[in-house]
Amino acid sequence: MALVVQKYGGTSMGSVERIRNVARRITRTYDAGNDMVVVVSAMSGETNKLVALANDLCEFPDNREYDVLVASGEQVSIALLAICLKSMGYKAKSYHGWQVPILTDSAFSKARIEDIPDTNMRADLNDGTIIVVAGFQGVDSTGNITTLGRGGSDTSAVALAAALTADVCEIYTDVDGVYTTDPNICSSARKIEKVSYDEMLELASLGAKVLQIRSVEFAKKYNVDIHVRSSFNDNPGTMVTKEDKEMESVLVSGIAYDKNETKIAVMQVPDTPGIAAKILSPLADANISVDMIVQNVSEAGYTDFTFTVTKADFKLALAITTETAREVEAGTVVTDENISKISIVGLGMRSHAGVATKMFQTLAKEGINIQMISTSEIKISVIVDSKYTELAVRVLHEVFGLAGGE
Amino acid sequence: MALVVQKYGGTSMGSVERIRNVARRITRTYDAGNDMVVVVSAMSGETNKLVALANDLCEFPDNREYDVLVASGEQVSIALLAICLKSMGYKAKSYHGWQVPILTDSAFSKARIEDIPDTNMRADLNDGTIIVVAGFQGVDSTGNITTLGRGGSDTSAVALAAALTADVCEIYTDVDGVYTTDPNICSSARKIEKVSYDEMLELASLGAKVLQIRSVEFAKKYNVDIHVRSSFNDNPGTMVTKEDKEMESVLVSGIAYDKNETKIAVMQVPDTPGIAAKILSPLADANISVDMIVQNVSEAGYTDFTFTVTKADFKLALAITTETAREVEAGTVVTDENISKISIVGLGMRSHAGVATKMFQTLAKEGINIQMISTSEIKISVIVDSKYTELAVRVLHEVFGLAGGE
Repeated sequence: MALVVQKYGGTSMGSVERIRNVARRITRTYDAGNDMVVVVSAMSGETNKLVALANDLCEFPDNREYDVLVASGEQVSIALLAICLKSMGYKAKSYHGWQVPILTDSAFSKARIEDIPDTNMRADLNDGTIIVVAGFQGVDSTGNITTLGRGGSDTSAVALAAALTADVCEIYTDVDGVYTTDPNICSSARKIEKVSYDEMLELASLGAKVLQIRSVEFAKKYNVDIHVRSSFNDNPGTMVTKEDKEMESVLVSGIAYDKNETKIAVMQVPDTPGIAAKILSPLADANISVDMIVQNVSEAGYTDFTFTVTKADFKLALAITTETAREVEAGTVVTDENISKISIVGLGMRSHAGVATKMFQTLAKEGINIQMISTSEIKISVIVDSKYTELAVRVLHEVFGLAGGE
Repeated sequence: MALVVQKYGGTSMGSVERIRNVARRITRTYDAGNDMVVVVSAMSGETNKLVALANDLCEFPDNREYDVLVASGEQVSIALLAICLKSMGYKAKSYHGWQVPILTDSAFSKARIEDIPDTNMRADLNDGTIIVVAGFQGVDSTGNITTLGRGGSDTSAVALAAALTADVCEIYTDVDGVYTTDPNICSSARKIEKVSYDEMLELASLGAKVLQIRSVEFAKKYNVDIHVRSSFNDNPGTMVTKEDKEMESVLVSGIAYDKNETKIAVMQVPDTPGIAAKILSPLADANISVDMIVQNVSEAGYTDFTFTVTKADFKLALAITTETAREVEAGTVVTDENISKISIVGLGMRSHAGVATKMFQTLAKEGINIQMISTSEIKISVIVDSKYTELAVRVLHEVFGLAGGE
């Protein structure tokens, strides 16, 4: 008998019929003799609807209350799934984040899981009860509801798997697994059978939306095997797991793109020591993650300072940066919302030279101008005009030999 | 400085614009120097939508999970209202039932409030924070979410007013107050300025949907003055308060109707002692309230046993009763879903004879057949074919002199 954690995303929970389908899948695994903890997201579209209501009320909704609002979507899902399981004759019980409890810090909308005491769940598991947990949400030490950020249900699932030392964590989604790139824009994209935590981290952080990045960090830290697969068929998916020899032989394992970033450039910044910190710390204080950062070589004591943030953080980041620019007596603040980040990822890059050159040459040949570059040990990212996104992905997918065989 | 509890129903919270309107009303009272606790319902239509989802999944959704489901509607409302108040520059904080905590028993969907510790709220009130509480919901002693039944937000508000010894409890709704009857079917209906707890209890229990009956019981027990008024204008509404001399002089203060009942009759019941209990106790065990009960005079050792339950309980009540009928070897079970309860209510009935006769004669003159009768000290109810509802209300309103003067 094993302990299986399964997570079903919003599309899998998108209608009463789909919830029934999810319930059948759960009971199949349960009937095979496994203990089950199931994590679910809000029904697809629900969270967006709630966010739209908040934004109709004001531009920057209060963080605490925003979390109360969006956490309600998962509450609906756990109740409906538990109702369905019970109507099928199974023992089932829904758990809010605070009922587990999933204890987090108090960083509303971006909370981090700190601890998951398992006493409540163990009692129900020993009783043969299927546990249905609201993903995406937790509770802080003073009883405030928190949420883990978009895609946070993946992290809930992996953290629960770690807390309960589950045998496997299955993440059910609307795709068959992790692909070499988005099949919607590149028909030759191929499903990857096995991918390392580090590669997956890069792919996730670069906008391949299959898993939330923090869930992969968690999985890496606690050594949780994640099986990403489709809730609409029985095909084997992608295993996200420890790195092995075989993986290292692959130069580039995937191409990711991200249209969710925006560029903010502060022109004519007086180039004094600590200027980067001066611009960036107010953003950090507002809990805004800055992704790529470029600072030009100083010219006559002035520099241009450019960085990217997500579209969701854009308005607030711009307001804060405009204020900072005034304070440090810099020039104008210039923005570009029509950018796209294209990235290539692969463990093989560590040991092979020339990958970057090949990437830049390929893009140049297509007349695609590179605006910013950032690299890590196993990935290279570039910012380009968003209209080139699809073209860039396709030519890179081709040139690095990722096209499917069958 | 006073402590004011305000409650806003689903229609008042029905859109972003209406929530803004509610926020303006709250801040007006707050700015006048009052401490504020605000109770809100789910946005209109939301609870029905959730119930429909559950019923799509199965006929009798599990009680515990049903409460988890429907409690989510109020969670959306408290978050949106708190977001709105904070965006206007006010201190505000949302509270779920479990965060207050509003402690209840474990009778899911019909839970009763047992205690409301006020420590958390007092701390926020002392800090000048406007408290926004989710109506309709509570938490039981083992941390399960419970709900108080339809209209339960009224009870939440009155119970909070009692717990905090508030100076007044204002119930905002989409009508101007309590009327002598439903203005939608009787154009001469008139707003009542002041009504006693007992009269309001009868009117509420008889289907005048302005206040949940339990809220009035609470108000009576703890002597809370309830001001029922519209959230769409500044007209004075109806005060529900202690009985006084003036009220006693009114023979009939209101006519109520209820189309939400259904009739179940067990024919040919062997007339042995304890048969009523045998039929009714399985219903009580299932937490089904039976309203009117009629047992015919016994004939040759057999009797017919008739009672009414709400439409919501009908299916389950019928299933249970059919089983009981089989067990006690009674005849067939006959049902009628097209009935309506018409009631006249007034403190003056206590001291005046002939009110019942006048009611029955008036209905007879219109050819309306009376199927069942039930009386209390201050009300008379009859069951009639539902097609006569409007006619019955209008003629009784006229004959008891309730038509408006102005």
